[in-house]
Amino acid sequence: MKSFQRLVCALKRLPGIGPKQAERLVLFLLRAPESESEALITALREARARIQPCRRCWNFAEGELCSLCADPDRDQRLICVVEEPQDVAALERSGGYKGLYHVLHGSLSPLDGIGPERLRIRELLRRLEEAPGVVIEVILATDPDTEGEATAIYLSRLLKPHAGVRTTRIAHGVPLGGDLDYIDERTLSHALAGRREVS
Amino acid sequence: MKSFQRLVCALKRLPGIGPKQAERLVLFLLRAPESESEALITALREARARIQPCRRCWNFAEGELCSLCADPDRDQRLICVVEEPQDVAALERSGGYKGLYHVLHGSLSPLDGIGPERLRIRELLRRLEEAPGVVIEVILATDPDTEGEATAIYLSRLLKPHAGVRTTRIAHGVPLGGDLDYIDERTLSHALAGRREVS
Repeated sequence: MKSFQRLVCALKRLPGIGPKQAERLVLFLLRAPESESEALITALREARARIQPCRRCWNFAEGELCSLCADPDRDQRLICVVEEPQDVAALERSGGYKGLYHVLHGSLSPLDGIGPERLRIRELLRRLEEAPGVVIEVILATDPDTEGEATAIYLSRLLKPHAGVRTTRIAHGVPLGGDLDYIDERTLSHALAGRREVS
Repeated sequence: MKSFQRLVCALKRLPGIGPKQAERLVLFLLRAPESESEALITALREARARIQPCRRCWNFAEGELCSLCADPDRDQRLICVVEEPQDVAALERSGGYKGLYHVLHGSLSPLDGIGPERLRIRELLRRLEEAPGVVIEVILATDPDTEGEATAIYLSRLLKPHAGVRTTRIAHGVPLGGDLDYIDERTLSHALAGRREVS
């Protein structure tokens, strides 16, 4: 059963897939019609061949520019900085933002050896420098965890010298639909500190 | 981002993979070196091409017979009936069994439209008929759930006319390392009913 074990091993290398699920996947892939496994192979090869980073915002793109950077209706004055391409998708689903993005591809994490040079920070600064006066606000939307906060602080310092560019951070507070009892104290203290007048 | 979405869709079709995990897998597959995704493709194609059902026990095999059926040291008088190939692997890991297996590839489930004709039951009876007097015991090791129990009962009735063949069911009881408090009442009542003299 060498080929069986080899496929289990190949699947176990994927993130979040343990030995049990890998076995279940192999069974499914062996039992499904050949067209099913070939469709997966085609989709994988096609994605690898076509998808490349957008040369402006480093989101995934199928051409030189991603669909958002290529859209002239997006507000060119706003750049929202996120950690990962899926964050762009999440913010787009919210429907509340019409500006551009910049994908760092990670967050600062000294323990994992990820310093500023490993992220697309240089490319962000270059965007601001290449078109001075265009961007008026950089929104730091890195994750609300230790690494994301550290990255936001680091970026806000780097961006300070850019006169005319406001640097903002997405609001921290209680998530909608949450139960106040179950929300951790740090979030609650942020929610209190960030309270706003009821209009 | 059509190719991205297409790969997400192809991965979501796999059992136990939701939309979030599919996205995470795509990111991993896009970022990993090409050799990684090609290794997965090769393993998948190879497994599909080489693995076929063992023509005797219907376990997965890389030749005409699986490694267990091909092993002359296995006790040819015992057949252990299981639902899935992974059950064979689990029983083999236990190390307590030296006989042969028979893989049904499922269990009776009228609600899902799975009747006896969908399982490898005919093939089990043929094994007994083709070599009369060889097999002395059929161990029913289908899962201890409703479908598995129903399958075991169905098989025990089918096997009754085969004189000289004992039909047994694996013991139900408290699992080792378990905490008695946390064990459901049906398992406990089975454990009590199946109690044995301490030697």
